[in-house]
Amino acid sequence: MATPSLLLSRRDLDFQLYDWLDIEALTRRERYAEHSRETFGDALDLSERIAERHFATHNKKNDQEEPWFDGERVHTLPEAAEALRVFAESGLLAASMDEESGGMGMPHTVATACFSYFQAANVGTAAYPFLTLGNARLLCAHGSPEQIDTYVRPMLEGRFFGTMCLSEPQAGSSLADVATRAEERPDGTYRLFGTKMWISGGDHELAENIVHLVLARIPGGPPGVKGLSLFIVPKYLVGPDGGLGERNDVVPAGLNHKMGYRGTTNALLNFGEGARHRPGGEAGAVGHLVGEPHRGLAYMFHMMNGARIGVGAGAMALGYTGYLKSLRYARERPQGRPPSAAGKDASTPQVPIVEHTDVRRMLLAQKSYVEGALGLLLYCSRLVDEQQSAATEEERAHAGLLLDVLTPLAKSWPSQWCLEANSLAIQVHGGYGYTREYDVEQHYRDNRLNPIHEGTHGIQGLDLLGRKAVMRDGAGLRALGAAIDRTLERATAAGGEAERLGASLRASWERVTAVTARLWEKGDPAVALANSSVYLEAVGHVVVAWIWLGQFLSAGEGEEDFLRGKRQAARYFFHSELPRTGPQFDLLAALDTVALETDPAWL
Amino acid sequence: MATPSLLLSRRDLDFQLYDWLDIEALTRRERYAEHSRETFGDALDLSERIAERHFATHNKKNDQEEPWFDGERVHTLPEAAEALRVFAESGLLAASMDEESGGMGMPHTVATACFSYFQAANVGTAAYPFLTLGNARLLCAHGSPEQIDTYVRPMLEGRFFGTMCLSEPQAGSSLADVATRAEERPDGTYRLFGTKMWISGGDHELAENIVHLVLARIPGGPPGVKGLSLFIVPKYLVGPDGGLGERNDVVPAGLNHKMGYRGTTNALLNFGEGARHRPGGEAGAVGHLVGEPHRGLAYMFHMMNGARIGVGAGAMALGYTGYLKSLRYARERPQGRPPSAAGKDASTPQVPIVEHTDVRRMLLAQKSYVEGALGLLLYCSRLVDEQQSAATEEERAHAGLLLDVLTPLAKSWPSQWCLEANSLAIQVHGGYGYTREYDVEQHYRDNRLNPIHEGTHGIQGLDLLGRKAVMRDGAGLRALGAAIDRTLERATAAGGEAERLGASLRASWERVTAVTARLWEKGDPAVALANSSVYLEAVGHVVVAWIWLGQFLSAGEGEEDFLRGKRQAARYFFHSELPRTGPQFDLLAALDTVALETDPAWL
Repeated sequence: MATPSLLLSRRDLDFQLYDWLDIEALTRRERYAEHSRETFGDALDLSERIAERHFATHNKKNDQEEPWFDGERVHTLPEAAEALRVFAESGLLAASMDEESGGMGMPHTVATACFSYFQAANVGTAAYPFLTLGNARLLCAHGSPEQIDTYVRPMLEGRFFGTMCLSEPQAGSSLADVATRAEERPDGTYRLFGTKMWISGGDHELAENIVHLVLARIPGGPPGVKGLSLFIVPKYLVGPDGGLGERNDVVPAGLNHKMGYRGTTNALLNFGEGARHRPGGEAGAVGHLVGEPHRGLAYMFHMMNGARIGVGAGAMALGYTGYLKSLRYARERPQGRPPSAAGKDASTPQVPIVEHTDVRRMLLAQKSYVEGALGLLLYCSRLVDEQQSAATEEERAHAGLLLDVLTPLAKSWPSQWCLEANSLAIQVHGGYGYTREYDVEQHYRDNRLNPIHEGTHGIQGLDLLGRKAVMRDGAGLRALGAAIDRTLERATAAGGEAERLGASLRASWERVTAVTARLWEKGDPAVALANSSVYLEAVGHVVVAWIWLGQFLSAGEGEEDFLRGKRQAARYFFHSELPRTGPQFDLLAALDTVALETDPAWL
Repeated sequence: MATPSLLLSRRDLDFQLYDWLDIEALTRRERYAEHSRETFGDALDLSERIAERHFATHNKKNDQEEPWFDGERVHTLPEAAEALRVFAESGLLAASMDEESGGMGMPHTVATACFSYFQAANVGTAAYPFLTLGNARLLCAHGSPEQIDTYVRPMLEGRFFGTMCLSEPQAGSSLADVATRAEERPDGTYRLFGTKMWISGGDHELAENIVHLVLARIPGGPPGVKGLSLFIVPKYLVGPDGGLGERNDVVPAGLNHKMGYRGTTNALLNFGEGARHRPGGEAGAVGHLVGEPHRGLAYMFHMMNGARIGVGAGAMALGYTGYLKSLRYARERPQGRPPSAAGKDASTPQVPIVEHTDVRRMLLAQKSYVEGALGLLLYCSRLVDEQQSAATEEERAHAGLLLDVLTPLAKSWPSQWCLEANSLAIQVHGGYGYTREYDVEQHYRDNRLNPIHEGTHGIQGLDLLGRKAVMRDGAGLRALGAAIDRTLERATAAGGEAERLGASLRASWERVTAVTARLWEKGDPAVALANSSVYLEAVGHVVVAWIWLGQFLSAGEGEEDFLRGKRQAARYFFHSELPRTGPQFDLLAALDTVALETDPAWL
C-alpha cells in the first residue's frame, strides 16, 4: 500500500511476532511445519487488504445506520454481508483451525494478529466471524462428529454463523440463575423454553443459518451452575443431507440499541415461545445436547476464555487505530508555538501539534497502552500455540497455567487502557475529535462495551484474585513469576537502563506476591475480595510492564526511529504507569475495608 | 416531590451550602441583606421543579433529534424553546445579577447550585442561558450603558441569547492567530470579515436575536493576542427603540455533529461573507466595539473564567445525576449472591447488586467525585461572592487570588473525574447502561466534551503551572496554602480520624509546594511545563482532598445515614484517591523528560 495503514502498524506486528516472540521457532514444530515467515506475511498482507477495502469502508455506516428489526426480520447493511462473504472466501476465518476441520493450521499468534486488522477496521462487522469461530472451536472440542459435520463445516465456510446464549433477563453475571428449560424427547433431541438476552449476532440474515449454543437446564438436574447443559439450537433445522429445513422456534423479541458497537445486532431471543415457528407443530425450540448433560458451563468456558482474549484484542485494535489516527492528526495539524520560542509571536508560523510536549505525552501514553496490549494478547495466543504444539506434557501444562492466570488480564487490561487511549485520541484531535466527522469518537463509543461484555471488569477481578491467583496453591502466579524471572535475568545481563527497569519490575512483582498472600492470610473471602478490582488493575500494570521490558530488550540499541520509539514507550510505561501500582498495593496490603463496610443506606 | 430527585441531592446541597460553607453568613452583608435561607430554598425548589418538568423531559429527544440546518435556517425542538421560555419567566436566568440590571441579587453560590439542576436535567438546552448569562455579565462589566441597555436587558429577559466567538479554523487553542478583521466606519461602527468555528448556540431560532461577542483584529493593531478587540455583532441589527432591524451579515455555514451535547447547536459562522445578508448593501458584518481597542482578550477572559467554572459545574451535574441513577439501579437490580453466603446456591434469592462490595466501591468513587466536585464549584462561587461583598480590599484581593488559582482546577477536575463517574455509572448498570434505553450512556457522551471546550485539559495545565502557580511570586498558591492551613487547624483540634486525614493532606500539600519550586528552579519553561497535565491532576486531587476534609469536619459525629455517608466518602477519597498523587509528584520532582525528549519521528 502506498500510504501506511492507519489500522495497525505492520512494523510493530513484525517486531512483536518475530523479534520479540520469535514465532518463526514454531515453524520448526511438526504442527506448523508447513508454515513459514512467508505464509505468515501473506496472511497479514491479505488481512490488511481485505480489512481496508471491505471492512473499514462501511464502519461509519454501520454506526449511522444500525441494524433494525421490523417485528419479523432483522435488516443489516448489504456492505456487511459483502465484507463477510469476501472474508469467508479468503480462508482467514478458519486460519487457525486444523487442516482436517477445513482450516489452514496457522498458529493462533498469527491468526490473532490477522484478525486484529478486522477489529480495527470495523469491530461491528468483525464480531460475526469472531463469534462463529469461538462457536466452531467449542464444537470441535466437545461436539460429536455428526455435530461437527452438520454445524462446524458450514460455519467455517461462512454459510452459518454462530452465537453464544448465556444471559437471561434475571441472570446476567449470575449464571447459577439461568432458567431456560430443556426437555428431552423420545428421539434424543430436546425442546427448549426460555428467554436469552444480550445475544450478539442473535438474529440477522447475513448467513444462511445461525447456530446458537444455549445454556439450559434439564429438569431434575442439580441446581446452580452444576445443572447447566449445553445445546445446539439452529435458527433453521438442518436435514441429514445438510439442507435447511423448517424455521426453529427461536424468535427475536427485539434488538438492543447501543451507544456503540452498533454494527453487531444484539437481540433478546425467545426459545419455544413463538406460535409462528413450531417445527412439527410441537411446542419448544429443537435443541441437540452437546457432550454430557450438566457439563454445559465447563464447555462454555472453552468458548468464553477464547472470547475473553478476543474481547481484549478488539479493545486493543480499537485503541491501536485510534492511536495511529491521532498521531497522523498531530503531525498534520498546525496550532500554536513551543514555549521556548517567542511564545505568542503570531508572525512566526504555527507548528504541528506533535511539537507540543503534552501532545507527545498523550501519544506516548496511547502507544504504551496499545502496543503493550498487543504484546499481552500475542503472548497469550502464543501460549495457546504452546498448548497445542508443546513437546512435553510439562510444557503444555505450564502454558495452560500461564494462560489461565493471564486470561482475566488479557480481557480487562486492554478494555480499560485502550479505552483510555481512545479518550486520549479524541483529546489530541480537540474539538474535531468530538465530532462525528472524525473516526475517534466512534472508536471510543465502540470500545466502551469491552469492560462490560464477556464478564465485567468486576467479574474478571473476582476470577483473578478469587480463583486464578489461589488455584493449585498459587501455581498460576508462580508460573507467571517464573516467566517474569526469565526476562529479569536477561535484563540483568544486559545491564544499564534495562537492568534499572528490571529492578522496578522485580520490586513490583514482589509486591504482587506479598499482597496476594496478605489478602488470603485469614481466608475470609469478603475481606480478601473487597478490592479485587484494584488488584486486577495493579497486577495488569505489572504484567504489561513485564511485556514492555521484554520489548525493550528486543529493541536492543538499534538507532532506527521505530526502535527508539519502542524504547521510549517502554520508558514512559516504567516512569509514568508502573508507579501507579504503588498506592494500589498499599491499599490492598492495608486490607482496606471502606467499600466493604459501607452500608448501602449511607450512599 | 414524592420521589427524591435523581438530578441532584437536595440534602447534599443543603449540607454543603449551610453546614459546610455557611452561606447564611452572606445574608448579614449589605449586598445580600434581602436574602435568607428561605429565599435560597425557594430558588432551589423552583429550579428543581422546572428542571424536572421542562428540561429533563426532552433530554433524550435532544440527543435523538439533534438540531439541523437546512442551508438557511437552523431547526431545534419546540420543547427546548418552551423550556427556555419557562426558565426565563422564572427569573432564574438573572438570579445572581444585580437588581439594577433586572436580577435578584442572589449570591453566586446559590445561583450555581440552582443552575446545576438544569445542567443535570438537560445540559444541551441549559447551554443557551449559560452562554447568555456569561455574555451579559461581560457586557455589564465592560460595555457602555447604551450597550447594556440595548443588549443586556433583552438577554436577561430571555428574548436575546448570547454567544462567545473566539476560535477560527486555523486558531483554536492559539488565539494569537485569530484573523477576523474589523474595519472602522465613519459612524464609529465596524464591519467584520472572517470565519468563527465551534460557536455554541451560534445559530438557532430559540430567541428573537443572538448577541455574538466576537474577537477580531483592527488593522494596524499589534500582532498576537495584544491586537485583539472585542465586538458585539447581533444576528439582527437593533434599532434605537430596541426594535429588530435588518439581518446582519453573520451566516452559519453549517453545524457540527457531535458525539454528545447534541441539544446545543454548534456552528461554523461566516462574518461578512454572505451576499444575502448585507445591511444597507455594504460589505461586512456590523459590529460595535466593546470598551477599548486591543483589550478584547482581557475582556473575554472575564467571560471565559466564569465559563470555565460553569463547564466544571456542567461536568459535575452530569456526574451527579449519573451517580444517583446508578445508585437507584444498584438498589433495585437483583443479581448474584454475596461471597460469604453459600455463593452460588441458586435456591436462595438473589441480592440487590448494591450488596456487592465492588458495586459499592464504584458508587463510593462516584460519590467522592461528584460531591467533591460540587464542593469545589460551590467554594469557587463563594469566592465570587466574597469578591463582590467583602468588607475590606484585602479580603477581596485574597478571594481573587484564590479564585485565580482554583479556576483551572474547577474546570478540569470535574471534567476528568465526573466523566469517570459517568463511566462507573454505566459499569454499575452493566449491559443495560450501554444501551440507549437508559440515561447514563448519554451523560457519558455529553460529559466527554468538557475536557475539550473552554480550554482543553492541556491548556488548563499550562495555565495552572505556567501562570497561576508562579504569578505574583506564588501568591496564589500561598493563599491556597493559607486556606488549607485553616482547615488543618480545625482537623488538629478535632483530633482522632480528622487529625489523621489532616496529616495526609498536609503531607500532600507540602509536596505541591516543593514540586512547584523544584519545577521552576532552573527557570526553563520547556522542562518545567513538560508534565503540566500531571501537575494539574495531582494538585486537583490534593485540593479536592481538602474540600473533603472540610466536609468530613462539618459532618461531625452525626449518626444520620447521610452524615455517615459523607464521612465514608471522605475516607474513600483519602484512602483510594489522594494516594494516586504520590507517583505523580515523584515524576514531577524527577523532572521527567521522557515526553519532552521524544522525537516525533519515533512515534
